[in-house]
Amino acid sequence: MNKDSSLDYLVRVVSEEIHRSLSQGAPARGGEFCPWCAQACGGHCSAEVNRMVEVGANRVSALAPNASIDRSIASLIDHTLLKADAAYEDIRKICEEAKRYGFASVCINPSMVSLASRILANSPVMVCTVVGFPLGATLAEAKAFEAEASIMNGAHEIDMVLNIGALKSKDLVTLGQDIQLVVQACHTREAICKVIIETAYLTDEEKISACSVAKASGADFVKTSTGFGPGGASAKDVALMRSVVGDDVGVKASGGIRDWKVLQEMVQSGATRIGASASVKILQEAKSQSASNLPAPVGEGRTGNDYY
Amino acid sequence: MNKDSSLDYLVRVVSEEIHRSLSQGAPARGGEFCPWCAQACGGHCSAEVNRMVEVGANRVSALAPNASIDRSIASLIDHTLLKADAAYEDIRKICEEAKRYGFASVCINPSMVSLASRILANSPVMVCTVVGFPLGATLAEAKAFEAEASIMNGAHEIDMVLNIGALKSKDLVTLGQDIQLVVQACHTREAICKVIIETAYLTDEEKISACSVAKASGADFVKTSTGFGPGGASAKDVALMRSVVGDDVGVKASGGIRDWKVLQEMVQSGATRIGASASVKILQEAKSQSASNLPAPVGEGRTGNDYY
Repeated sequence: MNKDSSLDYLVRVVSEEIHRSLSQGAPARGGEFCPWCAQACGGHCSAEVNRMVEVGANRVSALAPNASIDRSIASLIDHTLLKADAAYEDIRKICEEAKRYGFASVCINPSMVSLASRILANSPVMVCTVVGFPLGATLAEAKAFEAEASIMNGAHEIDMVLNIGALKSKDLVTLGQDIQLVVQACHTREAICKVIIETAYLTDEEKISACSVAKASGADFVKTSTGFGPGGASAKDVALMRSVVGDDVGVKASGGIRDWKVLQEMVQSGATRIGASASVKILQEAKSQSASNLPAPVGEGRTGNDYY
Repeated sequence: MNKDSSLDYLVRVVSEEIHRSLSQGAPARGGEFCPWCAQACGGHCSAEVNRMVEVGANRVSALAPNASIDRSIASLIDHTLLKADAAYEDIRKICEEAKRYGFASVCINPSMVSLASRILANSPVMVCTVVGFPLGATLAEAKAFEAEASIMNGAHEIDMVLNIGALKSKDLVTLGQDIQLVVQACHTREAICKVIIETAYLTDEEKISACSVAKASGADFVKTSTGFGPGGASAKDVALMRSVVGDDVGVKASGGIRDWKVLQEMVQSGATRIGASASVKILQEAKSQSASNLPAPVGEGRTGNDYY
């Protein structure tokens, strides 16, 4: 497939996905009245959102019929420290915590990947890092280079921020090329790629476009937030994102998830991975509030990929 | 000079600079009493800061004896738009404003450099972009690649964020290598490099180290802030930075400079470039508060480099 036909294909897939998603998510369109809110809401009223949350919860239950939600919480969490002023000692601390509690990964900045990779060398905890972070506004080739270099330094997972400016300019071709280049850099090197759409900046229609383009571009996950934007994850957004990407792409909720209750809401809405810095506190809350056997025992294999 | 001797040289220069700067800036050390505050302040009391601000103001006057501070304000300013959700139309708008008012440059994200470069092709306004922005926590080679690619797309100036985590870990060798790689990428391609030290995260001693290392690594400017950290520029920090780098390196103040009064304070403290998004408002305020002939006429040559 040459470059032009690849682009045509992308645009067609995106258009169809957006159309399909909007149609599915909208019980009432045009001048029709929504059966839930009895207004011409275009399918975006709170009643419709509640319906989507229920759909998300059912889907998660169906995926893991024999697992209670609280049993494997630790292996759902990317234990995260992305502060600009994090020092080597801070990185050592979260790596030790990740090993102790069995988190899916540590999520750290690229310049700390090499250090974390050495500390975690003989553990099942993965190294996750971020690319084009947190603004997403750098060049596609710079993001791809950053992903490649990070993987060569030991990263297993790449959380990239999409080009929000391109999305705001309705330039879906540039948006898709940006993601494709990073996905390719990841998949060639056996790493997975999560695409951060930074929901706080987007309208619902833009969220749908972002998820559609990310899926069509080969992303393994879509992710709500960087934690550096004007807002974090919401159950509503997670449900919307899940409804767009279906069951074969993961949804990572991140940004402002600081307690066990909120984590549960995210999972019930369709999240299959959680980004959090308050991970240890969340586990302790979960343990105190349930009769679960947390944290889940850490097996020999890498556990983080089981959830998408 | 081989790699090891180059590193040894860097470490020696940095050590000497830090020692010299601390000695110069500290009228009282150890158990001695400061003549200004009459305490053992180590040279960091507010009286000492006021003295440095005066020194900065004198230095600026000496540099431009025939120019009133308000005459060439526009050519001091990098007209800045670094928001993650800036769309193409927003970039067009600030480029047109920069041409109209004669700002030194537009300061935008890398993915917008190509667009801005085309709009500004026949004007003296430069294109400035940011690297490793705003966290500074990516790999040195990724920053250098980002700088190179941005310059190839049309950028004349690169504002890089240094590795704050390395600085916090007292790893000055990594800190210096990171800056050197980007400076080299810039100077090879006739671009200038500003090093953002992100003052809000740093102690005074760390600010001095950062400026010393930046100067020893060949930076053309040191810059206070990204505008995305927990604080912006202060007159105190500008004066401190000026006292460390001397007269042959520029100082750019940025972050929170939203009115004419604050801009004046920055220049009086030693700033030779200003980063601002409220640039048009600042010019209008300056015009209304003085009998100046603002904005200064835009000449044939590029004006932004005249100030360091």
